[in-house]
Parts: sequence; structure tokens; C-alpha cells
Amino acid sequence: MRDILDAVASGELSPAAAEARLRGYATTGAGRFDAARETRRGVPEAILADGKSPTETADLAATSVETVGRAIVTRVDDETAAAVRQGLPDEVDVERDERARTVVAHAPDFDPPALDATVAVVTAGTSDAPVAGEASVIAREMGATVEWIEDVGVAHLGRVVDVLDPIRAADVVVVAAGREGALPTVVAGLVDTPVIGVPVSTGYGFGGEGEAALAGMLQSCTVLSTVNVDAGFVAGAQAGLIARAVDGGQSRAE
Amino acid sequence: MRDILDAVASGELSPAAAEARLRGYATTGAGRFDAARETRRGVPEAILADGKSPTETADLAATSVETVGRAIVTRVDDETAAAVRQGLPDEVDVERDERARTVVAHAPDFDPPALDATVAVVTAGTSDAPVAGEASVIAREMGATVEWIEDVGVAHLGRVVDVLDPIRAADVVVVAAGREGALPTVVAGLVDTPVIGVPVSTGYGFGGEGEAALAGMLQSCTVLSTVNVDAGFVAGAQAGLIARAVDGGQSRAE
Amino acid sequence: MRDILDAVASGELSPAAAEARLRGYATTGAGRFDAARETRRGVPEAILADGKSPTETADLAATSVETVGRAIVTRVDDETAAAVRQGLPDEVDVERDERARTVVAHAPDFDPPALDATVAVVTAGTSDAPVAGEASVIAREMGATVEWIEDVGVAHLGRVVDVLDPIRAADVVVVAAGREGALPTVVAGLVDTPVIGVPVSTGYGFGGEGEAALAGMLQSCTVLSTVNVDAGFVAGAQAGLIARAVDGGQSRAE
Amino acid sequence: MRDILDAVASGELSPAAAEARLRGYATTGAGRFDAARETRRGVPEAILADGKSPTETADLAATSVETVGRAIVTRVDDETAAAVRQGLPDEVDVERDERARTVVAHAPDFDPPALDATVAVVTAGTSDAPVAGEASVIAREMGATVEWIEDVGVAHLGRVVDVLDPIRAADVVVVAAGREGALPTVVAGLVDTPVIGVPVSTGYGFGGEGEAALAGMLQSCTVLSTVNVDAGFVAGAQAGLIARAVDGGQSRAE
Amino acid sequence: MRDILDAVASGELSPAAAEARLRGYATTGAGRFDAARETRRGVPEAILADGKSPTETADLAATSVETVGRAIVTRVDDETAAAVRQGLPDEVDVERDERARTVVAHAPDFDPPALDATVAVVTAGTSDAPVAGEASVIAREMGATVEWIEDVGVAHLGRVVDVLDPIRAADVVVVAAGREGALPTVVAGLVDTPVIGVPVSTGYGFGGEGEAALAGMLQSCTVLSTVNVDAGFVAGAQAGLIARAVDGGQSRAE
Amino acid sequence: MRDILDAVASGELSPAAAEARLRGYATTGAGRFDAARETRRGVPEAILADGKSPTETADLAATSVETVGRAIVTRVDDETAAAVRQGLPDEVDVERDERARTVVAHAPDFDPPALDATVAVVTAGTSDAPVAGEASVIAREMGATVEWIEDVGVAHLGRVVDVLDPIRAADVVVVAAGREGALPTVVAGLVDTPVIGVPVSTGYGFGGEGEAALAGMLQSCTVLSTVNVDAGFVAGAQAGLIARAVDGGQSRAE
Amino acid sequence: MRDILDAVASGELSPAAAEARLRGYATTGAGRFDAARETRRGVPEAILADGKSPTETADLAATSVETVGRAIVTRVDDETAAAVRQGLPDEVDVERDERARTVVAHAPDFDPPALDATVAVVTAGTSDAPVAGEASVIAREMGATVEWIEDVGVAHLGRVVDVLDPIRAADVVVVAAGREGALPTVVAGLVDTPVIGVPVSTGYGFGGEGEAALAGMLQSCTVLSTVNVDAGFVAGAQAGLIARAVDGGQSRAE
Amino acid sequence: MRDILDAVASGELSPAAAEARLRGYATTGAGRFDAARETRRGVPEAILADGKSPTETADLAATSVETVGRAIVTRVDDETAAAVRQGLPDEVDVERDERARTVVAHAPDFDPPALDATVAVVTAGTSDAPVAGEASVIAREMGATVEWIEDVGVAHLGRVVDVLDPIRAADVVVVAAGREGALPTVVAGLVDTPVIGVPVSTGYGFGGEGEAALAGMLQSCTVLSTVNVDAGFVAGAQAGLIARAVDGGQSRAE
Repeated sequence: MRDILDAVASGELSPAAAEARLRGYATTGAGRFDAARETRRGVPEAILADGKSPTETADLAATSVETVGRAIVTRVDDETAAAVRQGLPDEVDVERDERARTVVAHAPDFDPPALDATVAVVTAGTSDAPVAGEASVIAREMGATVEWIEDVGVAHLGRVVDVLDPIRAADVVVVAAGREGALPTVVAGLVDTPVIGVPVSTGYGFGGEGEAALAGMLQSCTVLSTVNVDAGFVAGAQAGLIARAVDGGQSRAE
Repeated sequence: MRDILDAVASGELSPAAAEARLRGYATTGAGRFDAARETRRGVPEAILADGKSPTETADLAATSVETVGRAIVTRVDDETAAAVRQGLPDEVDVERDERARTVVAHAPDFDPPALDATVAVVTAGTSDAPVAGEASVIAREMGATVEWIEDVGVAHLGRVVDVLDPIRAADVVVVAAGREGALPTVVAGLVDTPVIGVPVSTGYGFGGEGEAALAGMLQSCTVLSTVNVDAGFVAGAQAGLIARAVDGGQSRAE
Repeated sequence: MRDILDAVASGELSPAAAEARLRGYATTGAGRFDAARETRRGVPEAILADGKSPTETADLAATSVETVGRAIVTRVDDETAAAVRQGLPDEVDVERDERARTVVAHAPDFDPPALDATVAVVTAGTSDAPVAGEASVIAREMGATVEWIEDVGVAHLGRVVDVLDPIRAADVVVVAAGREGALPTVVAGLVDTPVIGVPVSTGYGFGGEGEAALAGMLQSCTVLSTVNVDAGFVAGAQAGLIARAVDGGQSRAE
Repeated sequence: MRDILDAVASGELSPAAAEARLRGYATTGAGRFDAARETRRGVPEAILADGKSPTETADLAATSVETVGRAIVTRVDDETAAAVRQGLPDEVDVERDERARTVVAHAPDFDPPALDATVAVVTAGTSDAPVAGEASVIAREMGATVEWIEDVGVAHLGRVVDVLDPIRAADVVVVAAGREGALPTVVAGLVDTPVIGVPVSTGYGFGGEGEAALAGMLQSCTVLSTVNVDAGFVAGAQAGLIARAVDGGQSRAE
Repeated sequence: MRDILDAVASGELSPAAAEARLRGYATTGAGRFDAARETRRGVPEAILADGKSPTETADLAATSVETVGRAIVTRVDDETAAAVRQGLPDEVDVERDERARTVVAHAPDFDPPALDATVAVVTAGTSDAPVAGEASVIAREMGATVEWIEDVGVAHLGRVVDVLDPIRAADVVVVAAGREGALPTVVAGLVDTPVIGVPVSTGYGFGGEGEAALAGMLQSCTVLSTVNVDAGFVAGAQAGLIARAVDGGQSRAE
Repeated sequence: MRDILDAVASGELSPAAAEARLRGYATTGAGRFDAARETRRGVPEAILADGKSPTETADLAATSVETVGRAIVTRVDDETAAAVRQGLPDEVDVERDERARTVVAHAPDFDPPALDATVAVVTAGTSDAPVAGEASVIAREMGATVEWIEDVGVAHLGRVVDVLDPIRAADVVVVAAGREGALPTVVAGLVDTPVIGVPVSTGYGFGGEGEAALAGMLQSCTVLSTVNVDAGFVAGAQAGLIARAVDGGQSRAE
Repeated sequence: MRDILDAVASGELSPAAAEARLRGYATTGAGRFDAARETRRGVPEAILADGKSPTETADLAATSVETVGRAIVTRVDDETAAAVRQGLPDEVDVERDERARTVVAHAPDFDPPALDATVAVVTAGTSDAPVAGEASVIAREMGATVEWIEDVGVAHLGRVVDVLDPIRAADVVVVAAGREGALPTVVAGLVDTPVIGVPVSTGYGFGGEGEAALAGMLQSCTVLSTVNVDAGFVAGAQAGLIARAVDGGQSRAE
Repeated sequence: MRDILDAVASGELSPAAAEARLRGYATTGAGRFDAARETRRGVPEAILADGKSPTETADLAATSVETVGRAIVTRVDDETAAAVRQGLPDEVDVERDERARTVVAHAPDFDPPALDATVAVVTAGTSDAPVAGEASVIAREMGATVEWIEDVGVAHLGRVVDVLDPIRAADVVVVAAGREGALPTVVAGLVDTPVIGVPVSTGYGFGGEGEAALAGMLQSCTVLSTVNVDAGFVAGAQAGLIARAVDGGQSRAE
């Protein structure tokens, strides 16, 4: 403990980073940042911008980069993206994915994980892309190779057949679908790897808030597991955990 | 009117048949039998045995044969089937379909309608057969040729492809499916004829009483119309009405 | 294939049209346009403006006209309608229906289908007109003659009786109704043709988002099929498919 | 109070009747009997047999006759009906209505109320008769003249027109309907008297436990009030209260 | 008919009023105005401003005054109130009730109905006043004397007791309550007249859109009938119909 | 630990009691018995007979008496009550409450807790007694004095007023009510002590499984907390915990 | 009474305060203020700013201070906070809690209650703070010592263990949690005092409006009671009532 | 193909086995058996006994053993277990798991798969065992080593900590929980491997059919995926697919 305090005293270590090493989390004005989540849980902590002010989000992102070398921010709009960029030192690499509504920042010395495993992320339609994009970003940040396959509606089976090879080649498959949510069932009937369905709230009328898709995936006559409506982050992280297991789970040994 | 009464007086016409001709319906102890339904609505009146005693059902069936020459009884168990048979003259032809839980009786002089149109009735699994069977019986009694195609689960698309030709050859398609109810969507994406989806209550857990299948069909990203959960009769009758329209709607001219 | 590429090289054929002929769909910045839908499915592809930017919608509309000679856009507001008009060559005929919230564009050489069949579109009240209007536009674009009959509330049966003749004369009937949604049941009890009910989300309080109307149509004591709440497009397209079947389904032979 | 106790001492008054006069209710092994309900509330207390043993029901019925001169028992089966009959003195007049599942007992000196007002009780189908029967019995026991009009389904408007005169002649109308529950709306659009809708749980599939009918009546585009699913007693009693008001509410003056 | 047309020709009768007399309704750009509703149904037609433009509402209000001598407009905001006032001749008396969100207009020669019957309108809290106000206005326009009793929460029974006398003195009682909706039950246990409960959408969390209040009124252990959530108009009109019946229903004889 | 094992070896302590002392729970064929629950949680472990065979329940009851000197069994039928009695040594005192469906057994040396605090348990009707009885038994076993007040329906406020004094005298009040569940709200408006509402599943139709009562209690315009439908045990235990706190929470010091 | 009127005449007592003393409530333009609530119910009346104009809220707050010496206002935004401050005399102490969205005002001579009892208020995450803050403010105003413990998510049990001691030291515990709402169950398994769960509407997708958290708390396998979604005030007041009981309920003796 | 037919002719191969090799499925009186499912999907076909007669189940089991060397039957009662045993040759090894309600049969020459991966199956309480048992059996039959850990309720966190090591040692974790379903969340917060939650229908009252548990798992503030209520088979098969992927997915190479 003394060396940590010495490092703080000498300015080598920020107070936030020191707190994170000593207690596992860093306290900010916008709540605690769970700096130990990745070590404990295998999933990096992400910052949900929705419901926070741009300033709060930027503070949390800065704390995240400071303590774990990386920040992953989801549900980001223009103003928040600018605040996050502005709140970080210039040498930090910041990448925004507008479709996925994410911002990812890497400190110069951040060493991203790399897994020898592939996650296929499949969408039924273009309106499923934001949710699937979130899944894609988190799986990639966990070290998986991500294969993005879009616009594979069940209304035309020919499209499904066209992309079957890359889907089958992946170690785990995430399928995002709104409306009736039949695509995960169709895909899961054609591959012998784990499939995770993500219901998307892109329907209308009865069951249109994603309940029809959710219920359909839960009732699927094939084998698949599911996550909550629009829960792209959860699906991507679960796929990342499977990818880690496939890779040998060696990060646990670190 | 006088000739009808004369016929009653002479015993040529039963009072029930006379009442049906004069008022459009015949009064029985178990309620009124809508003898004019087929003429007015294009759909023959059917007797729902569920919730009636075998005797009540048999009375209604006898009245039906007496007034319109035919009886169609649905949701029939063994006891009711026996009561219906016993309650009808020997010369009446009585056919029971155990899977569809129906009994159909034709008077010797009944001239069944015949339409130049085909209805395909497709099931996703064996547990959908009772509901689909009801649809099949009523469509056939309305004069359509019925093509029965069973056990075409979406869990294996190969099965769907195997039966595509007879489905495409039909004028209208009824697809019964439980669980997630994806089959009507898959079929409707492959044919250019009207498809009617029938959700079946063969699921379990969340949405398992047929709501998942119903919601999925209503949210379908293709074009299809639907009926209530387990409403095989309604689906078959709607298909029969379309078949009549295809045939030229000539029965309207009668 | 060579002649298609030659035509692209010579400028006779746009790349989008060429892609559509070769692969069945054309890729745009706003997703794929399913150019083969009408041939495969019998229903023309439509563009849902809701949830897309005016530019995206205009791009898809231009691609649609370019590849299949026609664009059908639904849920259109003023800004989108202007963008679609502006994005199309002057010689393209563009018609906007404000009540139905649709824009339909025909290339000069587009040969609209014509069916010898009539679809009656009936509304219970003025607030059902936008949804019914959508049904009307798509049925007409599929070639059916559309009979528009409005404001036939069940609160006054006299109105129903007044319009019974034109309803009975149609080959298929679409009935849109909000609140308790009783009109499709009342109409279906009076005609011998297929009736499709469209629940409309014009209620309030318990069941007011269209669920009361939907449930009422599914429970109807007559024969009718239904579509999702506010699904005017689906109802119109299903009616169009029935009209095609009535006409002889000859387009299938093409 | 002394004269009541004297009467008990002399055997002229039973302890239960004395308790009822003094405290407003009589205590029995099966709970308290609210003997003052009719005076206070205008509605006679009824005994719901459902969920009670035949003995408990018979005890309560005997207490009711003893204290207020009458017993009204609802949801009665054969065994309970026999127990009630057996538990009452021979001179008590006991009438069972099997369809309505009620038993009504009048002491020899009971003077039934009589109102100069008519309640029409209308059913959509035969399966609505038990619920409507309950309404009928309680309205009659409150003194109203009851007009019973059955089997008036909206599937055939002709039936509605046939019975319009007696419905219009009533002071208040109770309409019981299951499935989509459209009949109260149709009736209320044709009369200028208060209409009370009673949803009946005779549907199936989605909304089949009476919710579709309930939601439809609540959303009705005409003016009507409603009661809970299968609440025949409540509808009949509310109609009885209206009949009392029409008659001049003179019983309040007693 | 000739005299009507003569009156139109001479300018004594507007075309709208003539159409209303001949066909029962008047056609406007915003839909048909049901001019015969009051005669047929006993309830005056009202105009729901919600969902209409101020101009449309004003047009309908003018047509209403022109054809039946009165206009009743509900859910009115400032802009619509001004438009209605401006769209009517100066001699028309226009009264706005801001709390009830209504505007009522009477032509100079309009002879308002008067019934010898009283409707008590009771609210549980101040937030129930807009809904109860709607009930009050329509009951008064139907001729009833309205007794307004507000802020009688069940959280303090003393308040209920304080107002019991005027409630008991009324011929029919409307009780509006949000949250748990217990007040109609408490009131109905204390009076011997018909009580109509109106659930109000003033709750929060689970059941907060008025469903808790609605379910509570439907499950009430006393006798009452109910209307949909926030349906003040329906409750007031039903109370008005009961008041008419109490008064002798003589307006029917007119 | 050695002395425990010595006691087992000498037969002074059963293996189950020894396991309970060492690990906090005792393993049985029907699952683990949480012997430390009362010490840790302040609430004695109870055995839910529902869903267990009579033998399993009797085994758990015997283990309970053996390890903590007492057994509390809920949802008990005749057969299970007999099995429990038979499975316990004769010197164990066994008391069955048929209405509450409970069996409570005390070992001869069991020293029941006694708290200087009173819990009032109030029911709206006789059908709420089994659920309220469960609450009563557990509160009494936790040491509280229980005041039982039954049949206090809101349909007649006079009954509420009659029992206000004993309710007000209690330290905490449990109120069980089915149907619309208004009684807890009425009671909580009249006392200045904590009130816990227990919704009971004694309704019918819409919201009849206790949801109406639950929603009503959650929406209550007074202050009260609630438990799940029919959760008499939870309500009684929560009341018991409050009684312990009132008494000084001294049992925590033991 | 005469002395009150004398005091009003002399200006010593405001009319509002006089009305409150004589009738128990004070009438304002924004409804009645229940000045006797605290005496009768043990819970001070609070003013819900949500749904009221800043002026109305300020009027009620002034009446509250005038009659009972204190005002508690909840769901306050900036504009309302300013209006309340402005509407009160300068000598009144006004404290705003932005996180809890409350304003509390004390007259100079207000003597706040003080209880010898502690309420722990625990949040699962930062987004639960507004709801928990409301609970905290009301408990403190009722006289309890409040222990605020925040950000104790079940996703990391270490955090729960870290704060167990102060939670155990409290007399009653309020736990606010959104999403799956598991924290109250985990806490209640570890303490022997009453726990009140508050579901918070901070989820998304299926069950995201707080229903998942509510259902989870109702189904909890430990003993806890719950309040409606986001009902921080109710939870705090119930905890305050328990604290009063623990303290000896002496305020009842006043 | 000829050699297959030769083998049939010589009696070496049964017709069912031949059909399975040629078409991928074998036709039986109880439906088609999908013999190719394991090859195509990686999950062995299982036979759901629920809803089938003992004879039908036994026929399907015999066909399964005949075509793929193994039968897995779920939801088995005594009668069906006996029928399956009787319908198989003596040399077939048949193992019944009463708790899991499964029967597994292996032909003498069946070579069971073996994976170098472990699945932990964890239950919250004893009533979750049947569902978890199903998961356990299918995971084992797919070749995984299964670690069974039972009765780990969140009501006592000590139990969770006691079993953390074996849970962490597994490659994938299945957690079955009823009531509020919090255990999967608690476990997932403590391990860095994929966790699959299985909601179990062992609650009561509101949300008691497993919806509370399902909603809680979908809303979990940690990362986990879920399956439908009681879907032990799906959870076990998904875990098996992950175990296969961890093992290297080599069976895909076969």
C-alpha cells in the first residue's frame, strides 16, 4: 500500500487510480466507477451515457481511462461525444461509432485483449443495427474478432442462405431482430454453435415494444438463449465471455 | 307460406325445417340454429360441442341435418360423437375425424358444394394438427380442395423447402404454428398467395398460451392476416371464403 | 449477365438497376431495397418513412423508381414528401395522399397492374381514415379497384345499412375500426365475402392503444381475419393478394 | 330493546332475528349476515354459494329467511340446492332457477317489493344465459318487471331488429355478451334508456376470459356503463336500483 | 321534404340544417355530425376537440349550433376555445368551463331540457376534477340538476361523512377517483341510489394509468357500475339517461 | 466443536442438531432446514407444506423440532397434519389451526419468545381468514400479542368504526382484503401506526386473482406497505419484526 | 371556539390557521390542505409539486407553514423551488435537496419532532438516489435519525458486506433498487430488522418501468414489505411510523 | 443409396434407420423423428413425453435408439418410464432420473460424446431441482462434465460463498431459480464465465408463474443470458454448445 501512496505523492499515480487499486472502485461526482469489474467479472465496465449529463459522462470516462486505461461509453449523442473527447488528454485515442452510438477511448499504453475466437453479429434489418452495433463494440473490446452480417430478414430466406458460411464459421453468434424476431430461431436451426438472440424494439401495435420478439425467442423451437429487449451490450458481453472461454479462458490466469 | 304449412301438415316438412325456411333459424332446447347462415354469410353454421352436453349437441346436429341437410360439429369427444351418430337417421352419412375432433353428417340428398380452388393447410408440428384439422374440415365442407402438409418446423429449413411446390400451387394457405409461431412468416415470404396464420396454444412459460405465436404473426415482417389462438374453424372458413371468391363467387348467385 | 453489364457500361442501365436484376436487391446507404419482392411475393416493396431521415427515404424512393419503375412510401410528413419529390426526375409522376400519409411515384414507362377485382375499404370513423387510407393505396397499386366507404359507425346501425350494397358488391372487404372495434364483426355478419379487420389505436383508457379493438376482432363471433393495430399496409396488401387470386392469379404465370 | 328481548324470551323472535334488529347483522358459523343491507343500500343481501359448503350455505339461507323473510342464493349446484331446501321450514316457498344457478326462498309472510318499472335482460348467445339469469333474478326480487330476451347475436343484425320494440319499452336494459361483447354497443346505439353491459367469460384464446368483452364495452363508442366479467348479480342489482329510482324511490321513504 | 327545400331556397334554413333534418346527420370537412343522436339515443352529440385542429372543431361546433341549436365541446384548450367562439354568431351564448375543459354554446332560441332529477358528482381529490367536470357538464346539458361535491378522499373518512346528506339526496351519483379508486365503493355502501364509478388516470407506478382504480371499481364488494378510465363524458351521459328515466322519460314522448 | 461431537457420541445430541449448531442448517431428504434463520434474521424458519409430500413435511417438522425446539408448518391439509403429529414424539405439543391451515409444534423445553407489543390482524371478509390466520400464527410465534378482528368490510363503514379502538391500540396492524382491497386504505387513514396490507385472491373476473387488491394497496392515497397476494406469512413476520423493534429489539442482544 | 375567533379578529391567528384548528383542514385555491393529518395519522401532510403550477404549490406551502408550522414539498423543479421560497416570509427556514427533489420549510417557532430511532436508507445505484432521497427527507422530518448508504449494487457483493454494520445498526431499513431489484432481498437476508423495499423505474425493455423490481420484491424469498414503484415518500413515511413505534409511540400520548 | 437399401433388404438396417440416413428423419405414428438434428445442430433430439401417450413416447424412443443409438426423454412419469423401458430391447441401457423426470437410453454400441469442459448447474432451492435436473442431463449427454450444486438461496449469502469455488471452476454456469430469481445475478457478479439463468415457476401471487424471475434475469445489472420459464432443456443444451465450443468444437469436424 505504501508504494501506491508514494506514487500518489510523487504524482506518478492519480488519486483516482490509487483508490481504484486499493478499493476496486473510484469515486466520482457521478457515482462510483467499478474499476475491478473486468478482473472480477471478465467484462469491462461500460458507461451508459443515457440519463447522465455530458459532463457527468465525460468525468466518468476520464476516470475510466485514468484507472483502467480504457473507456467504453454507450448510448452517446453528439454533445456527449464532444464532451468525452474534450475531457480526455490529446494522446488518448478516441473512436466513435455513430451507428452503434458508442465512444471507445484507449490510453496510449492500453494493451487491448486479443482472443482467438470469432463472434458473428447478425441483424434482421437496418433498424436493428444500433443494438447490434453495441454488441459488436463490446465483443471487440473484449478481444474477439467480430464478423458483421446485416440485413438478413426472414422475409426472404435467400438472404439467410447467402450468409450461412460466415455465420457457421464463428464460435458464437449474436442475432438481433425486431418485429416478430424469427431470425435467431432460423439461424439457430442451421448452425451448431451457441446463438444469443437480442429482441429489438422496432415493432408497432400489439407486442411492438419488443415483447413479441422477446416472447418468440423465449418460445423458440430451437436452442438459443436471449437477453432483454435492446440489450445489445449484454448480448455482446455474453458472447465475449464465451469467446474468452473458447480461447482457453487464459485471461483468468493473469 | 301456405305451401310450407301444407307441407308441415302433410308431414313432408318437419316443423324445424319449416321454421328455418320462414324465419331463418330453428329453435331447439339448446338454442337457435342459424339455418340461413350459409346463404347469408357464405359459411355453413357449425356446432361447437365444447360446453354443451352430448344430448344438446346431438339435438342441434339433428336439427342441422333436418334443416340444411348437413351438420358440422367441432371439439367432439367420444361420448358426443356417439350421441350425434345415435341421434341421426341411419341413412345419414356420418364421418368423424378424431385428430381434428370433428363430426360431419350429410343427409342422403345433400349436395356438397364444389369449388375450383385449393386450400393448403400447413402445420409446424404434430401438436398443431387438431387446430389445423378443424381448418381443413371446414374448408373442405365449403367445397375447396384441401392439401394437407404437416410437420414443417422452421427449426429445419430443409423441411420447408421440401414442401414448397404444393404450398405454392394452392390458391390460399393456412399455416398453424405454436411456440414462437415463425412458420407463417417463413411461408408467406416464399409464396405470392394469401396466407392466414393460426397461432396454436402449444408453448410453455412466458407467452406459452399462444400469445407469443399470436404476437409474432401480428408483427410479421411479411404480409399475412391472422385469427385468434386455436381458431382453426375461423381460419378454415376464411380460407373457404377466399376459395369461393377465387372460384367466381358463383354460389352468391344461387 | 453480360448484356446487363454491357447496358451498365453504355449507361442504359443504372448500377442499382443492374444489381437488382442480378441479385434481387439494390444496396443503398439506407439499407437494401428488395427489388424482387413483388415478383416473389406478389406484393410491391414499400418504403416506411417513419424512423428514416427525409434524405434516406428519398434515396430509397429514387432507387425504387430506378429498379422497379415505382415507389410507394408510407407514413410521410411534409418534409419527407418534398424530399422524395425533389429526389426524383421531373418526368416521374408523384402523387401524395395527405390523409393516407403516402407518396406514390410512377416512372413514365411504368405499367401499373390492373385486376378485375374490387376491394371495399370501410372506416368506422374519421380517425380511422389514415390507417384505412394506407390499405386503400396499396390495394390500388396492386391493381384492385378500391371502393372507399367512410364513417360507418356501429353507434348508428342505419349508417351500416345505407352502405351495404357497395360493400356486398366487393370481392374482399377491409374494415378499419378503433375504440371497441365492433364494425368488422357487424359487416362480416352481413356479407359472404372475405373480411379483414384492422384495429386502429384511436381509443383511450383501458385497452385504448388498439388492444380492445384487436381483441374484439380476434374474438369475433363471425368469420374474419385480422392484422396488427394500425397495420393498414398489411391489410391492404392481403386484400390485394386476394384480389389477385380472384382475378385468376395470372400474374403468377408471368 | 326490552320488547325485542321479551319476544326472544317468549320464543316469538329467534335470537338471530333479535340480533339482526339490534345490530343490523346476524352472526352465523359461516360469517355475518348483513340483515340491514337492503334498508341501508336498497339491495337485498345475497348468499354466494360458490366457495361455501352446502351446510354453510344452508345455514346462511336459514338465517336470511329468519331475519329478513327471504333468502337469495347464487351459484348453486344440485347438492347445495337440496341442502338449502332441507334447511328451511316446509312452509317456506323455495324456487330454484337451474339456468341462472339461483335459489330464492320466501317466508309465508314475506311481502315482495313491486316496482312500476321494467328491466330488459338481453343475451347475445345461449352461453350468456347463466350470467344474465342471475341479473334477472335479482332485478325481479328487487321488484322490477323483467323482460327476458335471448340469443340476439350481432352476427345477424336481423335478430337485433326483431327484438327492438320490447328492449325500447324497458326503463333500463342489461345486455350480457361474451366473445367480442359488441351487443351492448349495438343495443345502446338504438335506445334512449340506460344500458348496462355485462361481459361474459365465454371466449377463447387471446382475451377469452372476458377481457375482450370488458375492454370492448369500456371502449364503446356509445354511452353505456359496465360491470366486471360474469358479474350478473351486480348488473341486475344496479338495474334494480335504477328501477327503484324510476318508480319514485319510495322505498327510501319507508 | 318540399317545405325544407323551400326553406333552404328562401334562406330560412341552412343547407346543413336541411341535411340534418332529411338524413339525420350533417356533412362537414371534419366528418359527419350526428344531428339525430339526441332524438334517437337521448344523449346530445358532443365534439371531442382532442385530436382535431381548432378550425375543424370550430366548424363542427358551428354545424352543431346550426342544426340542433347547441354545441358541446370537450377536451378544449385555449386556442380551440377561441376558435369556437370566433366561429359562432355573436348572439350565440358560449360558456367555457376551464376546469372541465369544455365549451358549451346555446343558440338564442335553444330551449334547454329540464329534468326533475338530481345528479351528484363527487371527486376524491382535486386532480379528479377535470374528468368529473366533464360528467357534470353533460349531465346538466341533459337537463339534470347537478350537485358538485369535491375533495372527499377516503384517506379521511370524516370528509365522507360530512357530505353524506347531499349525496343521499341525489337520484344518481357519479364518483370520480384515481389512485386506488376506493371512494365509489365507500359511497355506494352508504346510499340506496345507483352509483357510477369513474376511474381517473392520476396514479403512478404499477397500475397508475387508472387500471388500479378501474380494477378496484370492477371488483367492488358493493353494487356499482363503471366506465372507462377518464370517461367523464360517458359517466355524465349515463347519469343523465338515468335522470331522464327518473323524470318519467317524458322526453321520449316528444 | 469437540463437546458437540461428544454430545452426539453420547446420544445427548442428534446428528441433525449437531449439524445445525456447526453449520447453521440441517440436511434432510426434503432439502436443508435453515436452523440459524431465526438468530440471523429474527424470523423463525417455517415449513411450507404445499408442494411437499406429507412424509417430507413430517421429516422437516421433526428436524425443526429437533434442532430449534419448534416447528411451524403452513398450508397444511388433513393428511399432512396427521403425518406431522405422528412423526413427532408424544411429549411434543402440537397445535393445528384449521382456518389458518397451520400446525405449530413446541418441544417440552421450548421457551417461546414474548414481546411487549401487539399486532392487530384485521380481515375484510370471512374468505380472507386463511391468509390472515397465517399472519396471526407467525406473529404470535414471534412473541407478539395478536388481536384478531374479522369481517370488517368497507361496504358498511359502521363495522369499521365499531372496531377502531382495538385497532388503534395495537403497535402494528395487518389488514387482509380481497376483491378491491380498500380496507387497508380506510384503516390506514384512521390510525397512526404502521399498517401492512395483504391482498387476497378472492375476487373474480378482471383483476380477480388478487391483482386488483394488490394494485389498490400499492396506489393507496394513505401510507401503507404491502406484500404479495396471499402472503400471510410474510405480512405476519414483518409485523413480528416491527413488534420486536418496538419491544426494544432485545432478542438481538441475546 | 370563541377564543379562536377572537384571535382571528385580533390578527393573532390567520383565517387559514383558524379554519385548520376548527375543521382540520384549510381551503386554498389549489385544494384543501389536510392540517390534521399528522395528528390523526402520524405522518405530516406533504405537497406533491408534480402536476401543480409553481403558484399553486407556493400557495399550498404557505398555507402549510401558516397552519402547522412546516411545509414539505416533493418532486420540485427550479421554478417551483423559487416560487415556494418567494411565497414564504423571510424568517422561515427553507431547505432544498436537489437530489431528492424536495423543499422543506420550517417556521421560526416550529419544533421538529425527534425520535430515538434510526432509519437506514440504502440505494442500489446512483439512479435510485432521487427516490431514496424522498424517503430520507420524510423519515428525517418525522424525527428519525437517517443513515444514508448509497451505491450498494448486488453485482458486487463486496460492496454489500462493506456496509453491513451501519445497516444492521438501524431500527428499520429502506432499500431502493431498480432493474431486477434484488438488493432488498439480499439485505433482508442479512439483518433482523424490518426491511421496506422500494422498486425504482430505472430499467429498460421488458419489465423496465419498475415492474421487474416490484415483482421481485413481492416474490422475495426473505421477509420484506414493499411499496409502489418510485414511492419514496410512502417508504420513508412507513419507516417513520415504525421509528415512532420503536421510540415508544409517545407522540400518540400528546 | 444402393448399399443402404441392400442393408435393409438383408435385415441389417431397419427401415427407420434407412429413412433417417437417406432423408434425415424417420417417420413414426407420433410424428417425425429428427435424426439429423445432432449433426446439423450439435444438440441431440430429445422426446418431450408431456402431451404424448406412453405408447407414442415409447415408439419415438425406440425409433431414436434405432436411428441414432440413443434416446433422451423428458417430462416422464412412471407409466411412460415403464413403457419406454418395455419398448426397448433388453440390451439397451436405460437410466431414469426421477428428480429430473428424464429417461436416457443408450444402445450397446452407442459411443457417448466426451468434452473436456465442465458445466456447473446451480439451484436456488429444492423446488428448482426438476428444471435444473433436465439441464444437467442434457449437458451430460452432450459430453460435458456436470457439477451439481444445490440449494444456494440468496436469502443467506453464506451459502453462496460456500460454493463459489466449484462454480468458478466451471467453464459455463447454469443457474435455476424461482420466486424473485436473484441467484443468477448474484452468481454472475462473482464469476468471469458465461452464466445462463433459468427462471422457474415456483412462485405465487403476482408474477408467480415465473414471470418475476424471468423479468429479474432480463433486467439483471450483471451480464447473463436467459431462457424461458422452466426451460431446463434449453439451458442445458446451450451450456452444452458452449462446452463444445470450449472443447474445440471438434465434433463439427466429424
